[in-house]
Amino acid sequence: MSVRFAIIGAGVMGADHARIVAEDLPGAELRLICDASAPRARAVAEAHGAPHATTDPAAAIARDDIDAVIVASPDFTHAPLVLACIAAGKPVLCEKPLSQSPIECVQVMQAESDAGRSFVQLGFMRRYDRSYGEMRAALRAGTLGRALMMHNIHRNVEIPAADFTGAMAITNSAPHEFDVIRFVLDTDFTAISAWQARRSDSLVAPVLMVLETADGQLVNIEVNNNAAYGYDVRGELVGERGAISLIAPSYSRLDADLRQSTTHDPDWRPRYGEAYRRQDRAFLDFVRTGRFPAHGSDCWDGYAAAVVAEAGARALRQGTRVTVDMIEKPAFYAQRKEFAE
Amino acid sequence: MSVRFAIIGAGVMGADHARIVAEDLPGAELRLICDASAPRARAVAEAHGAPHATTDPAAAIARDDIDAVIVASPDFTHAPLVLACIAAGKPVLCEKPLSQSPIECVQVMQAESDAGRSFVQLGFMRRYDRSYGEMRAALRAGTLGRALMMHNIHRNVEIPAADFTGAMAITNSAPHEFDVIRFVLDTDFTAISAWQARRSDSLVAPVLMVLETADGQLVNIEVNNNAAYGYDVRGELVGERGAISLIAPSYSRLDADLRQSTTHDPDWRPRYGEAYRRQDRAFLDFVRTGRFPAHGSDCWDGYAAAVVAEAGARALRQGTRVTVDMIEKPAFYAQRKEFAE
Amino acid sequence: MSVRFAIIGAGVMGADHARIVAEDLPGAELRLICDASAPRARAVAEAHGAPHATTDPAAAIARDDIDAVIVASPDFTHAPLVLACIAAGKPVLCEKPLSQSPIECVQVMQAESDAGRSFVQLGFMRRYDRSYGEMRAALRAGTLGRALMMHNIHRNVEIPAADFTGAMAITNSAPHEFDVIRFVLDTDFTAISAWQARRSDSLVAPVLMVLETADGQLVNIEVNNNAAYGYDVRGELVGERGAISLIAPSYSRLDADLRQSTTHDPDWRPRYGEAYRRQDRAFLDFVRTGRFPAHGSDCWDGYAAAVVAEAGARALRQGTRVTVDMIEKPAFYAQRKEFAE
Amino acid sequence: MSVRFAIIGAGVMGADHARIVAEDLPGAELRLICDASAPRARAVAEAHGAPHATTDPAAAIARDDIDAVIVASPDFTHAPLVLACIAAGKPVLCEKPLSQSPIECVQVMQAESDAGRSFVQLGFMRRYDRSYGEMRAALRAGTLGRALMMHNIHRNVEIPAADFTGAMAITNSAPHEFDVIRFVLDTDFTAISAWQARRSDSLVAPVLMVLETADGQLVNIEVNNNAAYGYDVRGELVGERGAISLIAPSYSRLDADLRQSTTHDPDWRPRYGEAYRRQDRAFLDFVRTGRFPAHGSDCWDGYAAAVVAEAGARALRQGTRVTVDMIEKPAFYAQRKEFAE
Repeated sequence: MSVRFAIIGAGVMGADHARIVAEDLPGAELRLICDASAPRARAVAEAHGAPHATTDPAAAIARDDIDAVIVASPDFTHAPLVLACIAAGKPVLCEKPLSQSPIECVQVMQAESDAGRSFVQLGFMRRYDRSYGEMRAALRAGTLGRALMMHNIHRNVEIPAADFTGAMAITNSAPHEFDVIRFVLDTDFTAISAWQARRSDSLVAPVLMVLETADGQLVNIEVNNNAAYGYDVRGELVGERGAISLIAPSYSRLDADLRQSTTHDPDWRPRYGEAYRRQDRAFLDFVRTGRFPAHGSDCWDGYAAAVVAEAGARALRQGTRVTVDMIEKPAFYAQRKEFAE
Repeated sequence: MSVRFAIIGAGVMGADHARIVAEDLPGAELRLICDASAPRARAVAEAHGAPHATTDPAAAIARDDIDAVIVASPDFTHAPLVLACIAAGKPVLCEKPLSQSPIECVQVMQAESDAGRSFVQLGFMRRYDRSYGEMRAALRAGTLGRALMMHNIHRNVEIPAADFTGAMAITNSAPHEFDVIRFVLDTDFTAISAWQARRSDSLVAPVLMVLETADGQLVNIEVNNNAAYGYDVRGELVGERGAISLIAPSYSRLDADLRQSTTHDPDWRPRYGEAYRRQDRAFLDFVRTGRFPAHGSDCWDGYAAAVVAEAGARALRQGTRVTVDMIEKPAFYAQRKEFAE
Repeated sequence: MSVRFAIIGAGVMGADHARIVAEDLPGAELRLICDASAPRARAVAEAHGAPHATTDPAAAIARDDIDAVIVASPDFTHAPLVLACIAAGKPVLCEKPLSQSPIECVQVMQAESDAGRSFVQLGFMRRYDRSYGEMRAALRAGTLGRALMMHNIHRNVEIPAADFTGAMAITNSAPHEFDVIRFVLDTDFTAISAWQARRSDSLVAPVLMVLETADGQLVNIEVNNNAAYGYDVRGELVGERGAISLIAPSYSRLDADLRQSTTHDPDWRPRYGEAYRRQDRAFLDFVRTGRFPAHGSDCWDGYAAAVVAEAGARALRQGTRVTVDMIEKPAFYAQRKEFAE
Repeated sequence: MSVRFAIIGAGVMGADHARIVAEDLPGAELRLICDASAPRARAVAEAHGAPHATTDPAAAIARDDIDAVIVASPDFTHAPLVLACIAAGKPVLCEKPLSQSPIECVQVMQAESDAGRSFVQLGFMRRYDRSYGEMRAALRAGTLGRALMMHNIHRNVEIPAADFTGAMAITNSAPHEFDVIRFVLDTDFTAISAWQARRSDSLVAPVLMVLETADGQLVNIEVNNNAAYGYDVRGELVGERGAISLIAPSYSRLDADLRQSTTHDPDWRPRYGEAYRRQDRAFLDFVRTGRFPAHGSDCWDGYAAAVVAEAGARALRQGTRVTVDMIEKPAFYAQRKEFAE
């Protein structure tokens, strides 16, 4: 029997998940779209054949005909909605961040631990990207020797919103980097430093971070939300014997006008379309089997990202190196890790 | 309601289609696997959850609970099975070739025309490959000016079977090239010349072909079935103002041992996995709507490939340029073209 | 003591050689520029500090203060000027072709053989290009196994002259390809076929050739004199175990306007600037030591290029495969080969 | 008349300069090699045809038959030898560093200023590298908009000496980066932070630096002296509208063993061979004309590199951000800048 989905949030990400569930997830059924805007909920529901639309997320989660929930609503609603799903005993795939507040992340971890089983997968979809997968596999295969450094670049064509700031580059954009770096290196951050360049115009200038890990690795991240030329995510993992770099796949090369060129994507969706699909499939498996996906991002990962982001924002504000202080990993999450791989 | 599929042929290609239908085709249901080997049919059926397995293709096609058929059995069975599907009024996706015999292709075209509607889509999956898609789009967008030449390379690690010959490089491997070149250029071939290199060992040496088109373009194709180093398909379209080349996508780049490298695939499935998926989806749409897919390959395309392949084999045998003589395009297919795009 | 050079021909190539001799050839002294146009001879002489300029090539060759000659005058003057250099006992570096007439090439070979020592090096500078050098070295090192095929592309932005024809693409542009392919493969051509595409405008359309070698290899060459997008020379050597491709070196990569790009050269000089320099140095060594350069192109190579070009032009004109009939290699050249490597 | 050169230091770099002067610098004459080891001096002199060899640098500088000096002796001798050249009124090309001591650099600047004309060019040869040249030209052409960041990577196969340290990565390897970044950005550094990764073995681990510039740009540099896989220098300049990256040129691409690859250089000489040649030519022009080369690195540049390196070593030692405090630019150097470009 099909797994019946509710999607909360009908913005760009919610509509993308709706499309994936409706068209790309055999064994899944799109039942309901929920959004604060009733017309928007209805529009996405109609576009993807969901029979129901609502503005009430609590009611949506509670429905008998809903087996699983995807949360893609505004960031501040994530933790409360995830708690509601846990309370309702329904698995939930929550878009990042779980919360920007580490304390709120701890509360969700407590609730999930108390419930005694896994309910929450986070939408750090890069863990399902093939480029990062090859990087991680090369490291585990010993091809590179032990990891020493990671260089990471995240560039958007332009800021997502007019009131975006350098601090938001760290708290809103960089968490994807924080999570996937932890995933590749299988370690935690211990300190972070941050700088912001100066632009000649009023746009948000790029932020540069340097992170130190518990295993003695050095990681730098550029988050450049107004890169203008294209959406571009790069990464290089440097080991003791070799290095491996992500390639954003291209499909053709043009020779014209004294140049040879390939294209850049205008936004993140072409680059990560396949990763979203694979992530949502892993979530569907999780719903069916109860077994947390081996590569999935959980609440502990969400907490880790939140702690680093908070420290990074402080480092930028203060102009100093800030240590990353995390609580001890709860047994509920520590045990699963061993179980999962 | 789901479209119920039978797959005839449980070899490598049949099993791949079974996986796609079972896991990647929402709205499709895998009902039956048919193979001359009963154990093989059962094994693939079990692997992908098909409730039925049989060794009798006629019975499979005839079943009431089968809406659509995929033919992936040995080449010489394609045309008879397609005719059976047409007779049973069931849409069929037939792996290439429709037939190596142009006359047999004509017979199938006659049957489909007589039936008065479209039933047959051919498995020239490269039409659904993103690289060829970008090449064709660039030509149609006028970026390159008018097309002048195409350079094409098809390399396998090793021959598919011990009794493979240079003629079979033309009749069995090259049809994928013939079809996708016609698709990109939107024209037909008028003549073909062919040569075979000499190897120092007993393996099948590469074949080189030069084709001329009705629009005055020149096309060359290397088919190298024992290329050893990897599966590698390349293509370049040269226009009056620019050129565009296929890129086989890579996802990471390794620096080690004084070299920087990317990987080659060992066979065709990684490169064309997504194309197969998109092709099978287009076929599902065709089954549902009755409307032949805009980019699909039909019996006329299968006939064209067979005629060129036959001429190419003769050119190689005789060491001379051979003209490609095709019948006039039947009205049934000519009209659809206009309708479809 | 310095070797004193005369350069005959003060066009683009002659001026380039003048610059190399004057600025990049320690041990060489530029003494004289000769051109049919006295002002042009004087201008190049002044630009590069040559003390003498003349319009009389015979007098130039005869001068006591000239040790070596570079011939860069119009093609039809090459053979007579080379013969004059041999008669005067002066080494000569002659731009390609030695002659478009195989018979005239035979006459020069006879004169050089009769003189009993080497005087003539031909300006097939690609033999000194690093990309072709790496290709040839890989073949000789056994990395690729035995050679099976070569794919070659030669593209200019636009035709060098308004009255250029497809036949001239074979007789004037392709000889660089013919020579360097023979150099890489170390064999001779036995047959050639040729086609010309059709353009929609009045420009010269690209020519495609297929050549067969004495060792059973297949070679195809595109000569596209109106490629529009850039100067672009490509080549791939396919062996039994691997393949190697030329790379036109790039020095930077630009990300802008949703594209990532490198530049194409507008003409051949940036790509082969270093090859010309190395060639002219090899010629200087030849002048000093009397020992013909190991990688140099000699009159036999010039003859081979002329025979193939003539056969190719006939193949294009007749629309048939034409065999390449060469005389037996004169002992004078056969022996040197063994000596040189 | 030829410019007569003495080269002080007959190690790897001295021998390379000897080869360039002897073989690649028309108008230059290699007269003398000086080295603390008499046999080594003689060996290099003989290898490149220099008539004289000595162990006494003061005498070498003083000789009447020496017009210009190249200093390639151990680092601590650079400043004294340069001062001796200034005192003798002889132009000198000094390998980097001028001195690791900023105070000593100031003394040399004072001596050169007092002498009233330019004598000293420093061997920061990357200013003559084509890749950096294209990067700088793109910035000046406005293609990228204003500069925001630079990412730089310097990797060696292995440490140059057994007693190498992380601090030496900053003081000995990074100055090439410091200088060329200042050259590209045309600004100065204001602060530097530094970290060192941890390795699992006893080799020197990579160092990461973040530098801030007077114009608000952010610069990061990895210096990885035991990168194992190859010599690899990378750089990217990120502007407000686009970005440009260095490419280490490759000349061929190999397909073998399921990989497509290009080679890495084992050390810096292939990559910068042409830059050394162009640098030494610029120095020859400087000797002849008295006019300091437009792109040349002078004592002020040497001072700037020394100050940054010293601050970087302190930042690494202290684990804190260190400001870069430079004296005001002496009028002698400030004026030349305006004159030169």
